[in-house]
Parts: sequence; structure tokens; C-alpha cells
Amino acid sequence: MPKPVFILNGPNLNMLGKREPSVYGAATLADIEALCRHEADRLGLAVDFRQTNHEGTLVDWIQEAGEAAIGIVLNPGAYTHTSIALHDAIRSIAVPVVEVHLSNIFAREAFRHHSYVSPVASGVLCGFGATGYGLALAALAARTAG
Amino acid sequence: MPKPVFILNGPNLNMLGKREPSVYGAATLADIEALCRHEADRLGLAVDFRQTNHEGTLVDWIQEAGEAAIGIVLNPGAYTHTSIALHDAIRSIAVPVVEVHLSNIFAREAFRHHSYVSPVASGVLCGFGATGYGLALAALAARTAG
Amino acid sequence: MPKPVFILNGPNLNMLGKREPSVYGAATLADIEALCRHEADRLGLAVDFRQTNHEGTLVDWIQEAGEAAIGIVLNPGAYTHTSIALHDAIRSIAVPVVEVHLSNIFAREAFRHHSYVSPVASGVLCGFGATGYGLALAALAARTAG
Amino acid sequence: MPKPVFILNGPNLNMLGKREPSVYGAATLADIEALCRHEADRLGLAVDFRQTNHEGTLVDWIQEAGEAAIGIVLNPGAYTHTSIALHDAIRSIAVPVVEVHLSNIFAREAFRHHSYVSPVASGVLCGFGATGYGLALAALAARTAG
Amino acid sequence: MPKPVFILNGPNLNMLGKREPSVYGAATLADIEALCRHEADRLGLAVDFRQTNHEGTLVDWIQEAGEAAIGIVLNPGAYTHTSIALHDAIRSIAVPVVEVHLSNIFAREAFRHHSYVSPVASGVLCGFGATGYGLALAALAARTAG
Amino acid sequence: MPKPVFILNGPNLNMLGKREPSVYGAATLADIEALCRHEADRLGLAVDFRQTNHEGTLVDWIQEAGEAAIGIVLNPGAYTHTSIALHDAIRSIAVPVVEVHLSNIFAREAFRHHSYVSPVASGVLCGFGATGYGLALAALAARTAG
Amino acid sequence: MPKPVFILNGPNLNMLGKREPSVYGAATLADIEALCRHEADRLGLAVDFRQTNHEGTLVDWIQEAGEAAIGIVLNPGAYTHTSIALHDAIRSIAVPVVEVHLSNIFAREAFRHHSYVSPVASGVLCGFGATGYGLALAALAARTAG
Amino acid sequence: MPKPVFILNGPNLNMLGKREPSVYGAATLADIEALCRHEADRLGLAVDFRQTNHEGTLVDWIQEAGEAAIGIVLNPGAYTHTSIALHDAIRSIAVPVVEVHLSNIFAREAFRHHSYVSPVASGVLCGFGATGYGLALAALAARTAG
Amino acid sequence: MPKPVFILNGPNLNMLGKREPSVYGAATLADIEALCRHEADRLGLAVDFRQTNHEGTLVDWIQEAGEAAIGIVLNPGAYTHTSIALHDAIRSIAVPVVEVHLSNIFAREAFRHHSYVSPVASGVLCGFGATGYGLALAALAARTAG
Amino acid sequence: MPKPVFILNGPNLNMLGKREPSVYGAATLADIEALCRHEADRLGLAVDFRQTNHEGTLVDWIQEAGEAAIGIVLNPGAYTHTSIALHDAIRSIAVPVVEVHLSNIFAREAFRHHSYVSPVASGVLCGFGATGYGLALAALAARTAG
Amino acid sequence: MPKPVFILNGPNLNMLGKREPSVYGAATLADIEALCRHEADRLGLAVDFRQTNHEGTLVDWIQEAGEAAIGIVLNPGAYTHTSIALHDAIRSIAVPVVEVHLSNIFAREAFRHHSYVSPVASGVLCGFGATGYGLALAALAARTAG
Amino acid sequence: MPKPVFILNGPNLNMLGKREPSVYGAATLADIEALCRHEADRLGLAVDFRQTNHEGTLVDWIQEAGEAAIGIVLNPGAYTHTSIALHDAIRSIAVPVVEVHLSNIFAREAFRHHSYVSPVASGVLCGFGATGYGLALAALAARTAG
Repeated sequence: MPKPVFILNGPNLNMLGKREPSVYGAATLADIEALCRHEADRLGLAVDFRQTNHEGTLVDWIQEAGEAAIGIVLNPGAYTHTSIALHDAIRSIAVPVVEVHLSNIFAREAFRHHSYVSPVASGVLCGFGATGYGLALAALAARTAG
Repeated sequence: MPKPVFILNGPNLNMLGKREPSVYGAATLADIEALCRHEADRLGLAVDFRQTNHEGTLVDWIQEAGEAAIGIVLNPGAYTHTSIALHDAIRSIAVPVVEVHLSNIFAREAFRHHSYVSPVASGVLCGFGATGYGLALAALAARTAG
Repeated sequence: MPKPVFILNGPNLNMLGKREPSVYGAATLADIEALCRHEADRLGLAVDFRQTNHEGTLVDWIQEAGEAAIGIVLNPGAYTHTSIALHDAIRSIAVPVVEVHLSNIFAREAFRHHSYVSPVASGVLCGFGATGYGLALAALAARTAG
Repeated sequence: MPKPVFILNGPNLNMLGKREPSVYGAATLADIEALCRHEADRLGLAVDFRQTNHEGTLVDWIQEAGEAAIGIVLNPGAYTHTSIALHDAIRSIAVPVVEVHLSNIFAREAFRHHSYVSPVASGVLCGFGATGYGLALAALAARTAG
Repeated sequence: MPKPVFILNGPNLNMLGKREPSVYGAATLADIEALCRHEADRLGLAVDFRQTNHEGTLVDWIQEAGEAAIGIVLNPGAYTHTSIALHDAIRSIAVPVVEVHLSNIFAREAFRHHSYVSPVASGVLCGFGATGYGLALAALAARTAG
Repeated sequence: MPKPVFILNGPNLNMLGKREPSVYGAATLADIEALCRHEADRLGLAVDFRQTNHEGTLVDWIQEAGEAAIGIVLNPGAYTHTSIALHDAIRSIAVPVVEVHLSNIFAREAFRHHSYVSPVASGVLCGFGATGYGLALAALAARTAG
Repeated sequence: MPKPVFILNGPNLNMLGKREPSVYGAATLADIEALCRHEADRLGLAVDFRQTNHEGTLVDWIQEAGEAAIGIVLNPGAYTHTSIALHDAIRSIAVPVVEVHLSNIFAREAFRHHSYVSPVASGVLCGFGATGYGLALAALAARTAG
Repeated sequence: MPKPVFILNGPNLNMLGKREPSVYGAATLADIEALCRHEADRLGLAVDFRQTNHEGTLVDWIQEAGEAAIGIVLNPGAYTHTSIALHDAIRSIAVPVVEVHLSNIFAREAFRHHSYVSPVASGVLCGFGATGYGLALAALAARTAG
Repeated sequence: MPKPVFILNGPNLNMLGKREPSVYGAATLADIEALCRHEADRLGLAVDFRQTNHEGTLVDWIQEAGEAAIGIVLNPGAYTHTSIALHDAIRSIAVPVVEVHLSNIFAREAFRHHSYVSPVASGVLCGFGATGYGLALAALAARTAG
Repeated sequence: MPKPVFILNGPNLNMLGKREPSVYGAATLADIEALCRHEADRLGLAVDFRQTNHEGTLVDWIQEAGEAAIGIVLNPGAYTHTSIALHDAIRSIAVPVVEVHLSNIFAREAFRHHSYVSPVASGVLCGFGATGYGLALAALAARTAG
Repeated sequence: MPKPVFILNGPNLNMLGKREPSVYGAATLADIEALCRHEADRLGLAVDFRQTNHEGTLVDWIQEAGEAAIGIVLNPGAYTHTSIALHDAIRSIAVPVVEVHLSNIFAREAFRHHSYVSPVASGVLCGFGATGYGLALAALAARTAG
Repeated sequence: MPKPVFILNGPNLNMLGKREPSVYGAATLADIEALCRHEADRLGLAVDFRQTNHEGTLVDWIQEAGEAAIGIVLNPGAYTHTSIALHDAIRSIAVPVVEVHLSNIFAREAFRHHSYVSPVASGVLCGFGATGYGLALAALAARTAG
């Protein structure tokens, strides 16, 4: 079985669709997972889709992906802005990581403008809503194919 | 059974009464729980009193409270100053959150002067020691009654 | 006659209820005085309730309270953020001062996030509207009783 | 009798013409009052012209203008840069406020570059000397007429 | 033929009236030109009214005005906040420059609070909408007459 | 004929492929144009592909796109970090703008970490090299289709 | 009668000797006045010794001193650090001003390290306790004599 | 059985030897544990060697060490720079904590130059690679012996 | 014909000699061109001497020089401090660039102390007036000869 | 023989009277020494008057004064603003140190507004010219006598 | 004879044991030298132990060590925080430098938190008192042996 | 004998050619002295070439040059960035000072971007390696001749 892409979602993303749809859109995390599975099928990729509220668990999963995945689509949620541990975890592995955010973080509060993940990501995408996850998978596929 | 108020305590609050009583007072966390239960009885409220050292667990509990509680009294401890994840969790739910600190955080180190929780809290209380928990419950009761 | 609690209100609090009720609530300062007198009766406290737009007058009153009051509930209004004179006045007396704000100052403009009063206050309360004055009196009563 | 425009002058403006004419010009405050009365006559406005060195008095007068005036021409002097109380007073009333400075405050020391009044003023004028007061009256007249 | 006043408008001012009327008002740039020509007639001034999106062209025009105009009314648009070249161009000529902004730039984003033009302008006006252009012409006329 | 997507490239992007391939990749701007035309065909979009070293010309083109295009893919090059004029131009039109950068700007010098364009863009993409242009087109197509 | 030296004391200096003697010393303001009168006699100077908690009153007195005094010994208390109005008042008069502080303000909180008065004072003295007032008078006498 | 020294390792230290040996050296965490056990034997100490990616678990272990250990050798990894919870945990216990880093954190990115742990550590060691753990044990032994 | 040195002058340098000779000296740009031609003859260099007020034109010319020149003497004027586009243009070519300023920019306003050009220049010269251009040519000649 | 007061002068004070008399006055260092000796005689003090351009020598002398002097009058010149070594030297001795500056350092460049010496000085004097040395001796005498 | 380790001590370290033992411990510099000689004997190292108050002398000695020593234990005292000259001296030699501080500099004033030496040191040690010198020698011995 | 130019070199410049040739070039200080003597001969100048690691000695030499030299070529090394004493020494003399750096300090660490010497230098040169010394002499000769 081919290695999947890990799609890792950070804190509060399990609340999607329930609150603040003006910021995050109406799609639930289950909707996004479905979209990802559909897009992955189209691209010939397998996906392993997860969510956690725990920074340490995200670190665990990124390390696991270093062995078990061909790439990571990472939406670190609020840990984007505060977690050097995520930064280091990404540097400790060799597979590419695409950072994705549903909302345009640069149009929001100043404390959301800095990402500890971006400098070590292969690429960064934000503001495209659920579509962004599909674009991130396409980017990984293009990279693998390239 | 009516929904309780969640009283959520963050990292190191389980150490209360053991060290630095000049900063945090002599009361233990068990003393504070007893005080809260006594005050809740007076106000006709139920309480669910918890403590954790894990940021992710606090996020889990706040999300849970969105369904299971009528309000939250939150002492986020050190995560007050560093956790955007708590900020987002509070924004993802509809029940009111009262932030409480035992010590006067503004009379302490500069890194304790900023709170990521305050901008999304219903109200903020600090410097009243264990009494502050009772005031927080009274504030929630007043709000519910109002 | 027992010494009262001084309840001192700073600039523009006499305008309460007339403008910006979305920020400060619909209660007038007279409503708050009534609420305070009611709560004080319940707690067995006397109160002396005042308002001024002058920084120097607030300093005068705080000094007076050092002799004539058992505690101060202080809403310094805009002087909260700019007055080192208030800071020094509080340090020059021995009675406890509870700082109270109607609105959640941490959810407003950045220039309202810092208080020169907080580091020398016994405790700080904000975001509870008029209810906060009652909580402040309760906090002083608890302290006196403790 | 129609409501006047309040023309309110802050600290040290009573010293105009006596010192630092290279900064503030040779006109005295009495000269400026005369110019204002002349211009107001031309525009069909009444004026109430005042000066004080006290921040609290400026707050009192702005509140008064909320009832008694159709607009304010405000030269807050040094309180421009330090007074959040003035900011709040202007927000507490509904009549328009035009901020005016004799000198070009942006060509002077850095601590004069920020104004707490500007964000809540209808418009801001600086660097035109005594002429600026006339322009401010014209702006209020245009607004009233518009 | 007497030298005119140059009225120079910077980037995106040609879009006036089409978008964001809540910020910039409903008047188009043609409306403002008409207002300026009317006011100039009243004041006995000639005007040369121009707009460009190019910083370098604004510099060219300011240098040209040093020879060909008796004064400049300058709305530098976004270049207000980023152009030291405009600052230097104004310093390189001897005719007075009045800086004008339709909106109150101090009530907007922080990056609009600083102007490289203001320290070298004769005077600054903002927040008066189209009326501000007329006031600026009046200020220049008063200066010329004075 | 349907309105095209404008693909607008800022300063020095005409130098692509000639220098610093470790930063910007080996593709020339002609290669990127070809890739865009291929991807646009696949998506059923028309494209109008342009490059300029002039900030003012980018402003002109964005304004033009407000009338003549269904969306913009914008790589503002160095003006990303310094141009409020671009920011304002984007705000003055109603068509969506996707910001794209070849390199990961967050892994480079600090002065490239801030973008004046991002807060007003529909979405932001960086670090995907030439592939990013294709993803940007796909994002616009999804948005149009959605 | 010769013009006196004005010795002007700002907010909370009337509380000297009552609280915080470790910071401000045990001398009361009356003790300091006596010391000043004794030293002034030795130097052949008259003194006019005053205290106020009001910033505006300090401004009034400084303006008065411009006519009625040969110099000022000024202890602005907390207004030292916040009052541009005092700065401007001193610039508006021609008599020399010696700034004096009882405590060493540079050994205290950071917000006491900056003085708006110092740049316009003739000289500055701090940390000498009550003795500093005598030294300030001696400095003024030396200046007058010199 | 004597109480051991706790040797606590934070996030990503389980990846040692696998990636970035130019930064962290070639030793694996197992190698470091072996080195520690060897050095501890030489010094007559017992050790309890652990690693976690979870901030909350580090807090748990530090609290546990307050009862169960004679000292802590702590390499907090990325949490060094972001965790006030670790800071507070160390302050809540009485046993000495030696902070150790494999790399010279001061020769790396600016965000690694600040440690929330250092101000409450007994001593700090960095840049010595695996040897640093041995030195830390020696320091604790010296302290115990001293 | 041998490739020349491009001598490129930015905004407002065409105004030299007309204004502010105390800052920029009395020499006109024509004088500097003559000096450059004389010095180039002495050094056996050809020169192409140009001036523009447009940032984009400077970028165009630097790109052109990458093909057509052996080196650049660049006085970017005000764009020195604001143009990342110039920075990138210089990085996109292989010929050496010597940055020159007539005045000592470090003895002027703070906003002139930073140059985006300096980090990518071969060398920097300032404060030597017109002589600096000759020194810059000599430096390029030495480099070519070396 | 009684221990003297050390009067220690830092870098460039040997140039007094030769240059920049508008800043430092016309008195030479020899004049100041004479003034000090005269004033010391009046006060019954012995003085040891020295000057050096070397930071290390100032540290040596301060340490020496800890044994050999009853106090220090210290004008650290430029080392005031940069020398933590002086700060530490003063803390390492028990005799009082009065910091003196000829000019008003707060009316000069921003880099002269901070002193590493002030927080550990007994008192600070500036802006009195040569007179300041005499006042400093008087302050030490008062302290010794007190 | 084998090359020694240079143990270089900066300003005020000759005062050890005389003052502020709560900060620096009771050991004198002679005690530390004895401890170093004892530890060096154990490790088979020769030592050359020196102290100076002069920054330039520390630079001289570091340069000398480049030829004459196998390593340096450097306690730069106050020059740690201010001396780029030490930074450059260390970079100019090839022998390893271990930076050592007696106190925990991170638990002291903010101006002691930054070291110009650390980024170019092989390793850094602080807070271990005199023991730290022994650990530094052991680190050098381990490095030499490794 | 005519007065020479002083060529003064600061700390670590005696190490040139031994270390970090990628930064400072392969030339030794002796090579630079030879180059200077050769160039000085060509220009008809005498030179006095010196190096020291001591800040105080540089101050001594600059003061000496005020009497004994016609100009100074000053490479202050690391003291460029930290020494206000050098700044003051240059201001205390009347002869021109040309600041020179071998490397392009603006392409290096941020702490090398600021110079205390530049604001008081006649001109500044950096990045030209040893050639820069020759250019500096030529600049002084031109100035003397001009």
C-alpha cells in the first residue's frame, strides 16, 4: 500500500461549521475530509486525516509522518503562531509540508500574522477556505510528479 | 439535572498552598473547590471543578462546556499569556467565560501582563485570591439571572 | 458612624447611559449609585459615591480616603491608562483599592490595555458592567471580614 | 438665541504672542478670538471662546458643548498628545469637533506627532497659524449647511 | 496669465465615488475638480488639476510647480505614507504645499497615521471630504494675501 | 469574448531564470506564461499576462482589471512589501485577487515577511514556484464556479 | 520686595513622611519648606513654597512665575513623566527652572526614567532627598550671581 | 533506594541523530542516556531518564520531581522559549534544576535566544553537545556535596 | 566600443544646486556629470550618465546595465530608503554596484539611516559631495583592474 | 591625613574649553579643578582630581576609591551611556557616588538620555556646568555630616 | 611545556568576595584560581589565570591565546553585554572559548540577558558559582580528548 | 615637516589576513600600511599609521590628531558600533575624519549596521577592502586641495 499524505488539523478545527462561519466558512471538518478524499482520489493519493487540540500530539504525528507519509498538509490552527515545537518537528523530518489556513490570517488580528511553521514549510496557502486543502494536495502531487 | 458551571484550572494550580504562598495564598486547590461548592450552593448553581497541566485538555474542556455547561470560570494559569488556542476555543462556544487569577498579575513580571483570554472573556477578575472564584460565580449567576 | 467605602468615578462616567450604550451599557451613573447603595446595605457598608473629570481631584479624594474610608472602589476612567499620579496616590495610603471598569478594557483599543492603577490595586475587575461595582464592594467586605 | 460654536483652547495657549513666535506666530489669543468673531459673523455663527490650563475643565466644557453648542473648534494644546479623557469626552457627545493646531505638529518633536483627539475628530487642521481657526469655523459651517 | 495653484492627486483618487463611499464619500474626482474651480474663481485663483498613479510623476509635477505655480494642494494618496521622494521634492521647491486628505487618516489603519509629506507641508488638512480642497485653496489664498 | 484573468507580475520578474535560480527556480517568465496558458485552457479561462517594473503601472492595471477582468493573479514582487498604493487599488475594485509568490517569502529576509497586499487579497500562495500560478488560477476557477 | 524663587511641588508630595519613607525619606513637606527657607535666607533669596495635586494648577503657577519669580525649583512628582503641558509651560517663560526629585528616579520603575520636564529645565537634580532642594536653590543663586 | 536525578527531555529530542547532525550532533537520545548513566555511576547518582513531546507532561514530571527527585537536568527543547508553564512548575518545587541545551542557542535564530526556564534554573549550560548532560550531573553532584 | 559605467541618479537629483546647498552642495547635476566624465577619462572608462524621478525606471536601467555596462555608480536618492525593488534589481545582475550619496546620510534624519541598497552593493560611499562620484569610479576601476 | 573625595572625569573632558563651548561651557578642566579645590576647602574636604580616556582606568579608580576615598564625584563622560563595567564597579564599593554632567544630557541626543551609572549613584546632577561639581561636593559633605 | 588553558577574567572580578556575596558568592578570585589549579591538575591541564578591568587588554589576551593556549575559559564580566570587540577577537582565533558566569545572568537585570560573546563561544555556562570554572575546564578537556 | 594624516585602526585589525579572509580579505595590516604609504606618496601626503585594541587609546590618538594631523582615516573596528567616546572625541577636534571599513558592514549582522562615528565623520566608505584606505586618503587630499 502506498504511503498516504497526512492531513493534520490543529486545535478547534473540530468546531468548524458550528461557530463564526463568517470567518471560517460553513463547511464542517467532515466536509473538508470528504473534499480531501475526493481530491486525493482524483490525484491518485491516499490520505490519513486527523485532528487534535494537543500541540504535543501534532508533534508526535509530524514525526510519525517522517516515516509513514509522503507529505503533510498541515493546518496548525492557533499553534501556527506560538509553537516552535512544530517548527522543530518539521525540520526533523524530510517529507514536504504544505501549510494551509482556511481564513486569510493576514486580514485578521496582528497576532495571527506570524507563523513559526511558514519558514520551514514547502509552501503556504491561506484564505481559500476548504478549497485550500485541495490545492495543497494538488501542490504535493505536482511536487511528487515533478 | 441542570447544567453546571465548569470551573477549569490550568497548569500548576494543583500545587497551590505548597509553594509561594506569598504570591498565591495559603489555600490549596481543594480549599478553593470547597469554597466554590459552598458559594455555588448559595447561588443555586452546580459546579464541575477540574484541573490540568495540559493546554490541549483545557481546549477540550472548553469545547465540552460549549455543550454541557451554562458558563465557565477559567483560571488558565500560565497558558493565559501564551495560548491562542484557548482564545480560539472560547470564541468557538457561546457560553460566557469569566477569567480569574488568584494573584494580581499586573503587579508581577511583565510577561504576565498580557492575556490572550481577556479579549474574549465576559469579564476578568484578579488579585482577590480564592475569593475571586466566588465573585466569578456570583457574576455568572447575576448574568444568568439578569 | 463607621467609615464608608469611597466609590470614586473618573472622567466622563457622568455621561453613562447617554452615549455608546453598546460599550458601557444603558445604566446611568445614578443607577450605579443606587445599585451600590443597595449592595452596601446588604453587606453592612456605608458608601460615599463621587464623580469628577479632574485627575487632581481624584488624587485629592484618594488621599482623603486614606484617613476617612475603609476602602476604595475606583473606576478611574481614562486616567487609568495615563495617570502615574493616581498610582502614587494609592501607594501613599494604606486602605485597599479595588479597580473596576464597566467594559472589558482588554477587548477594546490597545491604549486601554495598560493600567497604571492595577499594579497598586488590591484587585481588578472589568467587563461586568454595573454588576462589577457590587462585586467590588463584596470583595472589600470579604477582605474586611477575612 | 442660536447655539454657538464652542472654541476651546488648552494649556499655555494664553501665553501666545509672548514667547516662541517662531513656533506659534505673533498673534495673541485675543487676536485669535477677534479673528474668530469676525469670521463667525461672516458665516452667521455665534461663538463661545474659552481657554484653560486644566485637562478636567476641557472635559467639562466638551460635555457641556454636547448640550449647548452646535460644534466645537478644539485646540487641545499639550493635552492633544496625552489625554484619553478628551478622547472619551468627544466620543460621549454628538456634536462635531474640529481639531486645530497653530503650528505644524508633524514638523516638531516626535511626542507631538500622535493625537488622542484626531481619531474621534470630524476633521483635523494644523500648521495654518491663526488662519486655521477661521478654516475650522468654515468647515463647521459647511457641514451644518451640507 | 497668472501662475495657477497646482492641485495634484495621487494613486487611486481617480476611483473616487466608485468604491468605498463610506470611507471616501460619494463625490467623484470630477466633482472635486468642479468644486475646486468654483472655489478658485471665488478666491481669484487659477488652478491646474491633475491625477496620476505614479510616484515619479508626482515628483515631476512638484518640481514643475516650483517654477510654474504659486502653490500646491497635494493629496498624495497612498504615497503619503511611503514616499520620501515626495518629501524631498517638496523640500527642493519654494512654493507652499498644503496637504489634504478626504478621509480622517488618523481614524483608519495604523499605517496611515504617518505622513512623510506633513513635516514639509505648510499645513495639513484631513477628514473634511471634498470640502477640504476648498479650505486648502482658501488657506493658500490667505497666505498669498497675508 | 469572455473576460480574462489578469496575471500581473511586478518588478524584476522579467529576470526570472537568469539569476538566483536557487531562490526563484530555473523557469523564465515565458515558461510561467506558457504554464499559465496551459492551465487556463484546462480550466476554460482566458488570461492576459503582463509584467512591469513600475508601481504606478501595476496600479493602472489593477484598476483596469476592475472593469475588464474576472479576477487577478498578482505577483507584486518587491512592491508586495512597500506599496500601500497596491493595497488601495485592490480595495477600489470588486474582482478577486490571488496573491502569489514563487519563493517562500517567510523563509527569507525579515523585510519580506510583511505584505501590504495580503490583507486585501482573496487568498495568498507562496513557495510553490511556477506551480503556484497554476494553483492560483485553479483557486479563481473554483471561486467562479462555486 | 525682591521677586522670590517659586518652589512648586506636584501631586502626592503633601503625603511626604507619612508613607514609603524608604523611598522618599522621613521628612515631611513642612520639613522641606523649613529647610528651603533656612537655605534661602543663607543665600539671600525669598521663596514662595506651594503644593498641588492638579496638573493645571502647576501650569498656572509656572506661567505666574514667568512674571513674578526669578526662578523655579520644580518637583513635578508624577507629572514629570506624563505632562507635556508642563514642558510647554516652562518653554513659555524666561526664568530658569531647576527640576528636583527626592528619590533617585533612575533606580525605580522604568516609567519614572523619562521626564518631559528635563529637556527644558536649566538643570536636574535627583536622589539627594530634602538636601536636593537646598542644592537647587544654591544652583539658582549661583546662576543669578554668575 | 536514594532519590534519583530526573533527566527530562522535551519535544523532538527523540529525533536526535536522525536529522540536522550539524546542529545537534550525531549522538542519539539513547547515546545520551547511556552517557548519563555512566556519568551518574561515576558520581554515585541514580537517574530517571525521560522524553516527551507534550508541554503538559513536562509540567507533570517537574511537579513529580519535586517529591521524587533530588534534582532535575532539564532540556526543554522548543518549550524553552515559549512555556511559562514550565517556568511556573520549576518555581513550584524546591529541588534544583539545571537547564541544558545541546546546541549553542545563542548562535541560532533570535527566537531561541530567550528562555523562560533560565531565570528560575539553578544554572544553565549550552553548546557542549552530549557532554553538557554530564556536566549538568556533575554540577548537581557538586551542589549536593557542597 | 567598450561597455561604459552607468551612472544612475534617482529622484530630485536634477534639482541639485538649486535648493538646500547647505545639505547637497552648490554643484549642479551637470557639474557632477562633467566631473564624472573628466575622472572617467583619467581612468580610461566610458560613462553613461542618467537621472530619473521614477523608481521603475531605475529598475529598468539597472537591469539594462546587467547586459550593457561594466559597473554602476548608483545614487538612488530617496529610493535608497524605501525601495526593495532596487535591492532585487541589483541582486538580479552580475555587475558591481557602488552606492554613493552626496551628503552624509547618517548625520541626517533617522529615516535616511537605512538603505535597502547597501546590503547588495559592492561598496558604499557617502558624505564626500561631488567628489564621491569620482571616488566611486576609481573604486570600480580598481576592481576591474584588480 | 583624612581620606579625600575622588573627583573622576572620563573621556574627552580634558578637551573642555577647547571645543563646543555652547554645549560644555568655556571652563577648562583646570578651571573646574580649581573650582573644586576652592569649594572643597570651604567644606573641609580633601580632593583627588583625575581624568582618563580609558574605561578600564575609571573602573580601577572607582575600586581604589572603595578603600581610599570617602566619596566620589563622577563625570563618566561618554561611558555614562555604554559602560556596565562602571555600574558594576560602583556596586562593588561602599562609598557614595554622585554622578555629575556639565550639560543637560536630557536636552541632547537620545543616546545620551540613558545612564548605566544613575541607578547605582547616590544622586545625579546635570546641566549646571562647572557649578555642578561644587554642588556635588556639597551633597557629599551634607551626607557625611548628616 | 604544553600550552595552557587561559582563564581570563574581566572587570570587577578582582572584587569577588568583598561585596554582594548574595549575587556572586563568598569565594574570592584567589579562591577561584586555587579551585581552577586543583581541577586542572586533576584533568592534566596547565592554566594561565588573569584578571583585568580593561576591555582592550582582554582583546590582547584573547589574541595571544590564539597562539599560546589550547583553549580559553572566559568570564568577560560586564563586557559580556557591551563588547563587540571581544566578539571579533574570539572570531579571529581558532582555539575554543568557554564563556562562564558566576551568577545566573538570566535571573538578573534585562541588560545582562544579552551576550556578545555567546554566539561565538563553544559553550556557555552560568549560575554555578565557582564550580562553573571547574566545569568549563572539564568541558575543554573533554573536547580536547574527544 | 608637514603634518601627516593619522591612519588609526581599532581592535582586531592586527589580525587581518590571518582569519576570516572571506570577510576581511587576504591583505594583512602591513599590506594595508604599504598600500597607504604608496598612495600617500602619490598624493603628496605624510601618514602616521597605528593600531590598538584599546578604546581609550583611540580616543587619545584622535585628540592628538586634533593638534598634530591634517586629517584622520579611521577604521574603528568593533568600537564603531559601541563607542560614544569616539563620537565625542571626533567632535572635540577640528580636523576631518574619514571613516573606513574593509567589509560592507551593511551586509553583515544587524549590530554592525549602526555607527556612532558616522554622524560626526566627514565621509564614510565601506566594502572596498584595502582599496578603501586609498580612496579615503584621496578624499582627504581632495578636501585639502579643494
